Formats: sequence, C-alpha cells, structure tokens
Amino acid sequence: MNMGSWAEFRLAPHFNYCLGMAVEEVSTSEKLVLTLSCPDQPGIVHAVSDIIVSNDGNIIQSQQFGDPDTGLFFMRVELESPRGRGPIDEGMEKFGEKFGATWKMDRMGRPLRTIIMVSREGHCLTDLLYRQRYAQLPIEVVAVVGNHPDLAPVAQFYGKPFLCIPVTKETKAASEAELLNLIRAENVELVVLARYMQILSDDLCRELAGNVINIHHSFLPSFKGARPYAQAHDRGVKLIGATAHYVTADLDEGPIIEQDVTRVTHRESTRDLVAVGQDVERRVLAQAVKWHSEHRVLLNGTRTVVFN
Amino acid sequence: MNMGSWAEFRLAPHFNYCLGMAVEEVSTSEKLVLTLSCPDQPGIVHAVSDIIVSNDGNIIQSQQFGDPDTGLFFMRVELESPRGRGPIDEGMEKFGEKFGATWKMDRMGRPLRTIIMVSREGHCLTDLLYRQRYAQLPIEVVAVVGNHPDLAPVAQFYGKPFLCIPVTKETKAASEAELLNLIRAENVELVVLARYMQILSDDLCRELAGNVINIHHSFLPSFKGARPYAQAHDRGVKLIGATAHYVTADLDEGPIIEQDVTRVTHRESTRDLVAVGQDVERRVLAQAVKWHSEHRVLLNGTRTVVFN
Amino acid sequence: MNMGSWAEFRLAPHFNYCLGMAVEEVSTSEKLVLTLSCPDQPGIVHAVSDIIVSNDGNIIQSQQFGDPDTGLFFMRVELESPRGRGPIDEGMEKFGEKFGATWKMDRMGRPLRTIIMVSREGHCLTDLLYRQRYAQLPIEVVAVVGNHPDLAPVAQFYGKPFLCIPVTKETKAASEAELLNLIRAENVELVVLARYMQILSDDLCRELAGNVINIHHSFLPSFKGARPYAQAHDRGVKLIGATAHYVTADLDEGPIIEQDVTRVTHRESTRDLVAVGQDVERRVLAQAVKWHSEHRVLLNGTRTVVFN
Amino acid sequence: MNMGSWAEFRLAPHFNYCLGMAVEEVSTSEKLVLTLSCPDQPGIVHAVSDIIVSNDGNIIQSQQFGDPDTGLFFMRVELESPRGRGPIDEGMEKFGEKFGATWKMDRMGRPLRTIIMVSREGHCLTDLLYRQRYAQLPIEVVAVVGNHPDLAPVAQFYGKPFLCIPVTKETKAASEAELLNLIRAENVELVVLARYMQILSDDLCRELAGNVINIHHSFLPSFKGARPYAQAHDRGVKLIGATAHYVTADLDEGPIIEQDVTRVTHRESTRDLVAVGQDVERRVLAQAVKWHSEHRVLLNGTRTVVFN
Repeated sequence: MNMGSWAEFRLAPHFNYCLGMAVEEVSTSEKLVLTLSCPDQPGIVHAVSDIIVSNDGNIIQSQQFGDPDTGLFFMRVELESPRGRGPIDEGMEKFGEKFGATWKMDRMGRPLRTIIMVSREGHCLTDLLYRQRYAQLPIEVVAVVGNHPDLAPVAQFYGKPFLCIPVTKETKAASEAELLNLIRAENVELVVLARYMQILSDDLCRELAGNVINIHHSFLPSFKGARPYAQAHDRGVKLIGATAHYVTADLDEGPIIEQDVTRVTHRESTRDLVAVGQDVERRVLAQAVKWHSEHRVLLNGTRTVVFN
Repeated sequence: MNMGSWAEFRLAPHFNYCLGMAVEEVSTSEKLVLTLSCPDQPGIVHAVSDIIVSNDGNIIQSQQFGDPDTGLFFMRVELESPRGRGPIDEGMEKFGEKFGATWKMDRMGRPLRTIIMVSREGHCLTDLLYRQRYAQLPIEVVAVVGNHPDLAPVAQFYGKPFLCIPVTKETKAASEAELLNLIRAENVELVVLARYMQILSDDLCRELAGNVINIHHSFLPSFKGARPYAQAHDRGVKLIGATAHYVTADLDEGPIIEQDVTRVTHRESTRDLVAVGQDVERRVLAQAVKWHSEHRVLLNGTRTVVFN
Repeated sequence: MNMGSWAEFRLAPHFNYCLGMAVEEVSTSEKLVLTLSCPDQPGIVHAVSDIIVSNDGNIIQSQQFGDPDTGLFFMRVELESPRGRGPIDEGMEKFGEKFGATWKMDRMGRPLRTIIMVSREGHCLTDLLYRQRYAQLPIEVVAVVGNHPDLAPVAQFYGKPFLCIPVTKETKAASEAELLNLIRAENVELVVLARYMQILSDDLCRELAGNVINIHHSFLPSFKGARPYAQAHDRGVKLIGATAHYVTADLDEGPIIEQDVTRVTHRESTRDLVAVGQDVERRVLAQAVKWHSEHRVLLNGTRTVVFN
Repeated sequence: MNMGSWAEFRLAPHFNYCLGMAVEEVSTSEKLVLTLSCPDQPGIVHAVSDIIVSNDGNIIQSQQFGDPDTGLFFMRVELESPRGRGPIDEGMEKFGEKFGATWKMDRMGRPLRTIIMVSREGHCLTDLLYRQRYAQLPIEVVAVVGNHPDLAPVAQFYGKPFLCIPVTKETKAASEAELLNLIRAENVELVVLARYMQILSDDLCRELAGNVINIHHSFLPSFKGARPYAQAHDRGVKLIGATAHYVTADLDEGPIIEQDVTRVTHRESTRDLVAVGQDVERRVLAQAVKWHSEHRVLLNGTRTVVFN
C-alpha cells in the first residue's frame, strides 16, 4: 500500500482502504493533488514532473520546501492527468521506493469524511457547519459527536447526524471504543475537536495520529492546560490568541497548523476575553481544517509545513 | 512630596526632586497631564473636575477605569490651567490625602530625561533615536550606555553622549553603582533597555521600579529566558512576537505595557526569525516608551492600565 | 423632548417614544449609560459629574474627547444611580439646555430592538444571530426581513420571525412603506443591513438616519459601488477589507464605524476573495453593531467618535 | 540577449550589460535564482528541472503559479549548480525560445545596485540604510539622490555618496538627464523612491519600467494623489495604510508589490496620522525592496506575482 504512511504518523488501516477505493473508479481526465516528503536529494522535482509529463499530465501549481534542519524535502503538486490517476499512481509507487518517500494523492476538492466533536460551546461547530454548507470547506460531515446533548439542534439544523457519547471516568474506554467503531464504520478520515472538553487517551491519539485537529484557546505555548483566558487575564497580556494543532499524546504539544491573535486591553475581564477569543478560535480552527482538507499541511517532525 | 509614590513602585528620591523643580518655574497658563489611582469610590471624577473648574481650568481629554478585580480606580486627565499648575497641585495634594490616591502631574509634552542601554544590536537604539529626533517620542536622551562600545557611532550620529560601562561577573556591582550615579547626577527619569543583554540586580530593579522598560524578544509568557527565537523555531509557531514590560526582580515577569506579533512560516530559519523579529521588537519598544512618556501607563498590581 | 436629537441625525419620533417609555418603569438603583455631545467649553465634565454625585450616583467608567477640528466635545459615562434614572434625567435636561448638548441615556445592557435585513447571502445574518443568542450582542432581533425568502430557515432556527418583502423597481415605494410600518409598529431602534443588496431611498435614509448600519464589502473609500471584490482583484491589492458605516443618502459615504482587512495574494481569484472577504465582513459588522448597541458610537459630522 | 526582457517592462540596455558581465566570471558551483514567465502549457516544470538535473544541479526551493485570467505561468527556482551558471544559461536560452518565455537568472544573494531617491523626510531612507548595513536587505546603495540637501548627513553616516539634484519646473528635463546618466554610469539596477516628492516624467518611467519602486502613503486605490493623510482624516477611516508599487507613467496606478495598514481612532489629527503612517510606510517599502531584490516579484500585467 502506498497511501498515507507518513514518517511520523501512521494512518489507520481503514483510511488506506477508503482512499484506495477511489483508485478503481477513475478512468478519465481529472485534477489531482499530490503531496510527498523524503530525504532531500537532487532529482526529486525532475522525477515527479517526469511521471506527470510522460503521462501527458500538466502541473497546475506546485510548491517545494527543503528543510536544512531535518534534511527532508516536501512537495505539493496540483496536476491535471488526462489519463486519470492510475498511471500517476504507478509512477509514484516506484518513485516512493526509489527516493524513500512517503506520499499521498487525492482527487482535488474531494471532501474529507469528517467527524466534529463538541461539548457545550457551539461557536466553532456553528462556524464549521456554516462554512461547509457554503462550500468554503471541503469536508463531508459524517457526524457531530458530543459528550453533552446541547448542540444537537445545531447539527440538526445543518442536516447532520448528532451522536451523544457521554464520557465519565468510568466509561471513557467504552466511549472511545464507540467512537473508534464509528470512525471505522464510516471510513472517517478527519476528526475535528471543536472545543471538545475531553482529553483523548494516548492509544486513541496514536491510532488517529495526524488526523485529529484540536483548537486550543491560547497562543501556544503560552497558557497550556486549563482556563487559558483566566491565565491570560492574570498575566495582563495585550493580545490573546488561539492555536490549531494536530493532537498527540503529549497534551497541547502537537504540531501547530495555524495560530492567530487579537488585541485586548486592561478593560476586558476574563469573561470578556472568553467572548473575544471565540472569534479567533473559530477562525483559526476553520483555517486549519481547510488547509488540512486541501492537503496543504505536511508533518515535519514536531512541526508542520503549510503550503498555503 | 506628592509625586510619584505609586502603590507598588516607589520612585527614587531624585525623581521627585527632578519633577519638583518644574513646579517653581511655571506661572501662566499651561497644558498639564494628571494621572492618579486610588481605591474606587463615589465622587472621584467630581472631586478632580472640581479642582480644575474652580481654578478656571478645562479638561481637554480624560479617561477612567475601575478595576472590579482589584477595586482600584484609574484616571488620566489632559487639562489646561490658565493659572498654571500651582493651584492644581495644591488641590490634588488635598485630594490625594482624602481619597488615599497616588497621583502625578506633569507638563504635557515635557520630554522625560532618559538613558538608553544597549549591547551590540542596534535596531532598537537606531529606531528610538530616529523617533526622538523627529519629535515623535517625547524623551530627552541624556546618554546611551553600552556594555560594549559597538554602538557608540550611532549615538554620536544623533549627537548623544555614549558611555561604555562593561559588565563582568566581578565588576557587576561596580558597574551598577556607576550607572546609578549617572542616573542620580543627571536626574534621569526613565531607563530603556534596548536589547541590553545584561540582567539588572534585584536591588537596582527595586530602586528604579516602574521606571525601567525592557523589550523581550518573544510574545511573553511564551519563550521566557534565553534564545527565544530558537525556542520559537523548535516549537514551530506560526507567529512570533515581542513584549515591552516594566523590569522587576522577577525576570520576564514584569507588568506588560505592549505586545505585538508578526506572521512566520515553515520556511524561516532561527536566523530569519531573528531578523523578522527585530521589526516587531523596535516597534513594540518605541510604542511602550511613547505611552510611558506621555503618562498613559498606570500600574495595576502586576498588570498595567494603558490609556492609549 | 431631550432624547436622540443629534446634531446631524434626527431620530424618528417613535424612537423617542420607545426610549421615553423606559423612564416610567424605573425606580430603584440601576446602571446607566449616558452619551452626549456639545460645543466644547470649560465645565462640562464637572457639570455632568455634579449631576451624578449630587444624586449619590457613581461613575463606573467614562471617556471624553474634544475635537479641535469641529470644536465639539463628546462624552460617554457608565454610571450607577441608586435613586434610578429619574433625577439624572432631570439634571441632564437642564444640562442639555445650558450647554446646547444633545444627549441620550439608556439602561446599561438593554438590548436594542433591531431588524436585520438580508438578501441571499447568510454569513452576516448567521453570525449576528449566533452572537445575539450567546449574549455577546445586546440586540433584540424583532424580525429578519429579506427581499428574497432564502434565509427564512436561518431566522427560524434562531426563533426569529422572518418577513419577506420583495423589492422591484415598481414596488420599491410600497416595500419601503411596509418596512417603515413594521419599524414603527415594533418600536424598532436599529436596522442592520446584513448584505442587503438593495439601496434605501433618500427619504428612508433621512427618516432612519443614525440608526441604520450597513456593511460594505470593501475597505472604503476603495472600491465603492458594485462588485468590489472584482475591482480589488483587477487592481491587484494585497489586502481586502470591509467597512461598517451608518447609511446616508450619499451611497457608501456614510460615517464609518469600523473597518478591517485581511491579507490576500496573487493566487486568489475574485471568487476566492469573496469567500475570504466574508470573514472580514461578518466580523466588522458584528463589531459595529455591538459598539452601536452599547452606545459607544457618537456622530461627529461625517465621522464617528468610537469610545471602545 | 536573454536577460530581463519581460513581457511588459523592457530593461534598459545597461542593465543587460551589467548582468551579462557576471556570466564570464563564474566557473564553479554556485547558488542561483531563476525566474520565468510564459504562456501556460504542459511540460514547463519538467523542461526546467531537466535543464537543472542534466547539469547535475539541484532544486533547493521552487514555486509556481498559473494565472487562469491571463493564461500565463510563473516560476521561481532556487537552485545549486555544481558546474556554475554557464550550462544553465545555455539551457534556459533554448527553453526561452521554445516556450516563448521571458526569464532572468542571478546569483542568489547578489545585492542589486541601487539608488535611493529622497526629498526631506528621512524615515524610509534611515530604515533602508539600517537594514542594508545589517544584511537584511540585499541591495548595494550606489548613491542617495535628493532634490533637497537635508538628508545628506544620513547618507554620510552610513557611508553612502549623497548627490543633490534639485528639481524645478525649468530644470526637470536636465535633472532627469543627470539622473539617467548616473544610472547608466553606475550600472544601477534598482531605483527606490523613498518619499521622493517629485513625479518622474513619462519617458523616464518607461525607460526604467519595472525597476523603480515607490512608496505611496495610503492604502491604494484609496486616497490617490496629494495629502492622503488629510484625505484619510476627513473621511474618518479607522485604518490607514501604505502601498509599495512599481512606478508607471500612470500615477499611483503601477503594479502593487506590498501593502499594509495600521489602526487609528477618532483621536488622531492629520498630523498624528502622518507620524503613525511613517511606521507603515517604511515597513512596507523595505519589504517590497527586499522581495524585489530577492527576485520574488514577477509582473503579471498590471498586477504582481509575489513568491514570498
């Protein structure tokens, strides 16, 4: 299998299956997006463009980056292949072996099968569903999962199934098993923690590594952990922020995808900061989900390469 | 003496002396800026406006803030007093006693007598001197003090005395004594650490409390301590920042005056971050010095009230 | 009548009526917000604080601004009045006559009775209703009015009446009459044009002057008129923006309340700009509506004073 | 000749000569930056990478962009060529003919020979010279030219020749001839108008097209022409900005390279806006000069492609 085996984050088998299905269906010209990373060395761009050109394909847009720190090379190509993805897949298979590359290819614009997980605060959920409906966000929301039932009406309004999976200390393992079953049964490719106030177990983090995006309500690494706005208020900062990152077992330490801040003053109470911060949170999370879904985010150790 | 005895930061005696001098010289109409803080209670604004009005003065602009957390009230008034500052001073003296207020009054636009301290990097110094010359920054640069001689030519170009006070582990106490002598002899009111790579002793921090501004090259509280840009690069943040704060004995924990950030990507090396960050550093420091010199920054415990 | 007769923008009679009603109901301690403007002169702050203090009231927060260009003075006071608003009203009545001031007073946090007008694009409406529900926006949405029925479900989801008033060249006068009837019948105080793609008649603009907020999808005065994103794309700008302003008979020339921008590159098509711009539009409009509803925006000729 | 003949902007002959000289000198491995634009068609990236690979070169970094509006394709490649630039030049010569491409190649990091033109305001000049000295800006300042002598000391401090060429209505033609002689004699490649308050003649604009960068002190297309800050103040905007653009005969209409804004309030006078705006001006101009000097800016009709 060629798909999705990144240096650091292994995709769950069902992800491969899901993506693999697409291969059979395609036969005529289509737009594809190809991402890869491998040890930096001469000839990478040429080899990739050779695969494309020798199959009468055309590069629409492309970006590359060589990281002198890690010695890794990253590439994202948007291409048009008149003979479909089959021959490109074959060529990339050989390329992957020769260059020691991990790579992925997908139809451009194909919405990722996504679960959005929530607790009680609806600003991020509302925003994601709004953007998804109006075609700004290439995700297909398979289900909204909440550990509380509060946001069911929002999911319902946007015509999405809502599943309540409560989590207590005792039921945590069972709850995560239920979630994982859902993910597998529905071929879910992306899990978005949209102010989901539960911590995933280490096992689940590893199982879904690279495919779970969380929004943390501070400008990391400032104010890790609980009640970041209260911390921010106490410290008297003049900007507050939010951080979207991949979830790892190491809490609030996962690779950062996007961050932003907004200005505050001495007048804002902690409660005000919460309200002001929600704007930044939903904007940053939506941006990260969009870039991830467009295959613009590549993992580079504990950091990310974002071809935006 | 009524001046400058703030709740948390006591002014050195010579500061009082220096400000006190101004009192004698004034006799006719002048523009004044008055700042005060005291326990919140009814009648503060009325009492202050009463002092002004009963002396035929006029309020040009004014801002107030009551902090529900600390129960303190803060006020900044720009006023015109046709009979000079004398009667206003007298009224405020009584007001201060009655309301338990700490307060300061100064001629509007009077440049603060300032020392800028530097090491080898000149971006903040160049910026401050440029702004001072072109009248955007109401400071009077009494001297530039460096622990290295590198930036003497910059001071010289702007016609400012440059004093080299090297600091080693052995000479630190003597160096600080020399600095303090200079501050006293020259009636210095403000010390700006413009990328001065030395840590002031706890005693000196206390002695000059509330009158020393430092620029830290990170978005505090992220990346305290040494090499913040290397830390930022390792963490893979998407924004880098700078923080101007009052210096306290608690390193990088002083009250924050101003912060700002700028966007970076995966492409920037630590070296690039240093270069990009310099722009933010100098902008943030200049802003903080400007607000401080215009008496817009009031201390509120470990935080600041900024009437900008 | 003392309420709402601003220098340039007269409130419709029913506005006064609506506000006036509140006077009777109040008898015990309450928080009030007072705004005023008048020709600048000594003693204004003192006179206002005198009214408050002599009625045992307390100033919580206050801001003033004197405009040297127009010679006008502006003030906003948040106060607590233990005897209710009655005596403050009386005092301000006399103050208004003596100082030639226009002034308004309202209960702090009282939601303004608001109509939101829309066409087909729902991003601003969705955002306003979301914020209103979660108490970030002090408005009471009396009705959503659309010239198309498309957004009825959004209004319905948030439990707001939706009224479809189609507008054609022939029916424009009748449609506006219907709108005005609704405004009067419902004591509407604020009309928000949330991407309402119709131009109000000059008469209606005058009738509702100072109480209609529009969002224009460009950084005014750039790209007035139709299709601003296409204009922006053609010009190759590197930032696109949005502008919230009071509606006047002079199209896109009303007093600006708030503006913001976001960065774009050569890669974005006009279509992309539209999508990116929606984020700025809804943020800017929500900010302007919030400030207006909190009585933070005062008119200063063709400009605004925003006490934020 | 292959160099610098862009679709819309022809380089003056001496530019070619100057760049051509470099060809002879190089023989061993070097880092090069290659930029090209041509009608979009399959095989461009492959052909370019073929030239590089077949000469044992390596692509360090590369960006491409196809503009669906104009049908043009743009590419920037940073490469390492172990056999020097000679064989790459030869390959590109053929490529250029085959694909109808205009292209340029330069040694990476080679400072562009630059003239900075000024009048009386020194903030942009001071900033550019500071950055150039501390190696953030890859330009070689051949001369500072002023129509007033005021800024001679700034040039002198940074060790740059200052040439005063006054301009009056009568002497304009002679002054421009003198400037053009200097440009030719010194093989100048870039002219930066750093708040130079004179308008270049149409002929000079054409002669230097694509190689003159101006900073306009507004967020174009807002507030074209004279006194933009006064215009901004009158309109009551909430953000002011600056625009760096290539100079064309059509005043303030040249292709935009970079823009930025900063927030202002009702409190700022026109004079304040001027001071605040200077920060944005110098930052935007320095950014544009840096990108241009690093060959990151490609012309796309009246717009730019910026590979930053």
